[in-house]
Amino acid sequence: MTAGPPGILRVPDILEHKRDGLALSRAEIEFLINGYARGEVPDYQMAAFAMAVNFRGMTSEETTDLTRAMLHSGEILDLSDLEGPKADKHSTGGVGDKTSLILAPLVATCGVTVPMISGRGLSFSGGTLDKLESIPGFRVGLSLAEFRRVLRAHKLGFIGQTVEIAPADKKLYALRDVTATVPVLPLIVASIMGKKLAEGIDALILDVKTGNGAFMAKEEDAITLAQRMVAIGKGMGKRVAAVITDMNEPTGHMVGNALEIKESVKTLRGEGPKDLTDLSVELAAWMLVLTSVEPDLEAGRKRIFAAIASGAGLQKLRQVIEAQGGDPRVCDDVSRLPKAAHRHEVRAETSGFLHRIGCRATGESSMILGAGRNTVADTVDPAVGIELGRKVGDAVQKGDLLATLHYNDRVRLDGALVRLSGAFEIAETPIYRQSLVRRVVD
Amino acid sequence: MTAGPPGILRVPDILEHKRDGLALSRAEIEFLINGYARGEVPDYQMAAFAMAVNFRGMTSEETTDLTRAMLHSGEILDLSDLEGPKADKHSTGGVGDKTSLILAPLVATCGVTVPMISGRGLSFSGGTLDKLESIPGFRVGLSLAEFRRVLRAHKLGFIGQTVEIAPADKKLYALRDVTATVPVLPLIVASIMGKKLAEGIDALILDVKTGNGAFMAKEEDAITLAQRMVAIGKGMGKRVAAVITDMNEPTGHMVGNALEIKESVKTLRGEGPKDLTDLSVELAAWMLVLTSVEPDLEAGRKRIFAAIASGAGLQKLRQVIEAQGGDPRVCDDVSRLPKAAHRHEVRAETSGFLHRIGCRATGESSMILGAGRNTVADTVDPAVGIELGRKVGDAVQKGDLLATLHYNDRVRLDGALVRLSGAFEIAETPIYRQSLVRRVVD
Repeated sequence: MTAGPPGILRVPDILEHKRDGLALSRAEIEFLINGYARGEVPDYQMAAFAMAVNFRGMTSEETTDLTRAMLHSGEILDLSDLEGPKADKHSTGGVGDKTSLILAPLVATCGVTVPMISGRGLSFSGGTLDKLESIPGFRVGLSLAEFRRVLRAHKLGFIGQTVEIAPADKKLYALRDVTATVPVLPLIVASIMGKKLAEGIDALILDVKTGNGAFMAKEEDAITLAQRMVAIGKGMGKRVAAVITDMNEPTGHMVGNALEIKESVKTLRGEGPKDLTDLSVELAAWMLVLTSVEPDLEAGRKRIFAAIASGAGLQKLRQVIEAQGGDPRVCDDVSRLPKAAHRHEVRAETSGFLHRIGCRATGESSMILGAGRNTVADTVDPAVGIELGRKVGDAVQKGDLLATLHYNDRVRLDGALVRLSGAFEIAETPIYRQSLVRRVVD
Repeated sequence: MTAGPPGILRVPDILEHKRDGLALSRAEIEFLINGYARGEVPDYQMAAFAMAVNFRGMTSEETTDLTRAMLHSGEILDLSDLEGPKADKHSTGGVGDKTSLILAPLVATCGVTVPMISGRGLSFSGGTLDKLESIPGFRVGLSLAEFRRVLRAHKLGFIGQTVEIAPADKKLYALRDVTATVPVLPLIVASIMGKKLAEGIDALILDVKTGNGAFMAKEEDAITLAQRMVAIGKGMGKRVAAVITDMNEPTGHMVGNALEIKESVKTLRGEGPKDLTDLSVELAAWMLVLTSVEPDLEAGRKRIFAAIASGAGLQKLRQVIEAQGGDPRVCDDVSRLPKAAHRHEVRAETSGFLHRIGCRATGESSMILGAGRNTVADTVDPAVGIELGRKVGDAVQKGDLLATLHYNDRVRLDGALVRLSGAFEIAETPIYRQSLVRRVVD
């Protein structure tokens, strides 16, 4: 009598099945996720589910069903009335990772629509929406109708996850944050893919970070995550590939919102740091290949470099900033971006070669300055952040500038310096940087 | 930055520790349970905790801390103003198990105060409160002050878990029921012991059931549960022992509320079935030994049998029924108890020996008749139930009465008969009953 009549689904039974290591049926997963999205399944049952999945995992079939249920819990953007292919990029998050701001306009100039739904920064990791909002006037809170208009006009737009998109994911994401169920692989996969597939795209390139500044510190975990996501995307008829990339130092030199916009503009002018430029071009080239705009990566890279050289990418960014209410003049005069009142320099205490820049230390130090959030309720200071003077592999002389902290608050500076201490490792032997793309999963 | 400043406890960190298999500190457990009792820790975090404990377990130190936190989340009955020892019995629940109603008055006649806080039936298992409420007028909802007055006057009283007693347990118990975390050993232990130790007793005998009608079907699980509970009770300075007893057939002949009161009265008259009488006397004897009223079990048994023979036990029950508002005349004339309108007989289809009576089948069949609850919201029909005509080991002739179903509703009878079919196994070879007490844990 504990199980209901046959055919009747009950949440406690579903939890019991997962607790005991059984694979859930598609019907069970849909019942759970749809009920949760509608508010009929309470948070406490979902929390027990998430914790059970932490221990029992999910088969790839279950994960696909979970992704599909997340996706269908809300609206799926129908972009079929827009001509040409649609593609997006997703990164698992890192420090100083501003490739979205660079590759999206570049890819859009090649005839691919990029309907980018992005997130905000949390913990040591930055967020595209916070960076964009450092541009005076820029609005990320467009309605879906406004978003469609911007996409139609410019093939590119940036918004946050709206209430219509994957609402079950939005609720579950917040719940996982307070129930110690963030690092649960099938839930990560379903969350990312459920959201991205709601964008109505044909192709998706995944940038899965690994290293000391990544959520997946171990390369094997990053590969597993990538394989799961690629399999699910393909299972839903999309063209999907993943690159496993190195996140053992911040990407580029800038960490902080306005600072990262500044560096993105510089990169679109062809004057960006090598690692940031290479990664942005590589991901953009993949998007052109996955959408069949170019036949292979080499042709893709060439096309993207051309869009940098011609200034077409920067022009696209200008248009989209204007279309979303921002001041496009920041693309020509970065001094129009918010600037912090003070600077503090950190200099090398010994000579040698820079072996390591702690990513988390840098990201968290920047967060303490005010560039990020400890909890979702925190507000962000767009102007503050950290500018790196050297990158891993660089020769360093005692007294050389390692980092400049842009700050507005002396107390926050003190905390940021404490967190940053020990982030820079200098040793006598030379060191060569690892290649940025460690592996491709497709 | 994900962990707070040192010394500051955060629930997500506590959940993470348990998730990752660390033992929690007493401070962490108290923070969690006290916060939960006060409504500051939400159900969803507690649900994640319960599920993590399902997979990671708890050390005996953690379980003790959890029990202590449950206990101290509410009021602890202070019975120090009552003379003489105080003791109670707890059973893990079975079918037809009415020993509380028999042993409690018997032990009280020997000078031991028995402050019995009992539960209601759920699923296939009956509850002492439901049975008592089948006595016309009997009130189980006494305030703690009324309870103390009854205890002072009669050394015996029966109530349910009030809002003052172990409120964290009350909330967690309800939560576990809907999050597939009922069979989680440390939570079971803390729930039982937290509640029982709140009674202000010196000694406790635990009746841990094993067999097809017990929550712990496997004997080894029952022993583990018993060992954990005994260790915790002793760790808190109480005298505690456990007997592992057989629950492979219903205890006695009667299953159902008024029917079980009738059988209890009969047993207190010395006319009860052997298994029920033996188990009640054994547990009662243990209570006398644990409270040092008698030096050993043999002396204890003798004393209890004397209290049956003299009628003192029945007289005690009469007094307590009257003190709690019930009609004491049921002790002399059981026809004053509610009676069902109809009876249906189930007879043997073959001859041989009765090898098995399915406990769950009998309990659930009785529940379907209306004697129990499927959910806590269901109401109970005091009159209905099942009366067994034969016990395991009995010789049976074709056509012999195996069971009489006492019912008020024809549709329910049909359902009950379906559930009961196959509950009686008759075979040609004789079978001897296992001894009721399989093992002692002390």
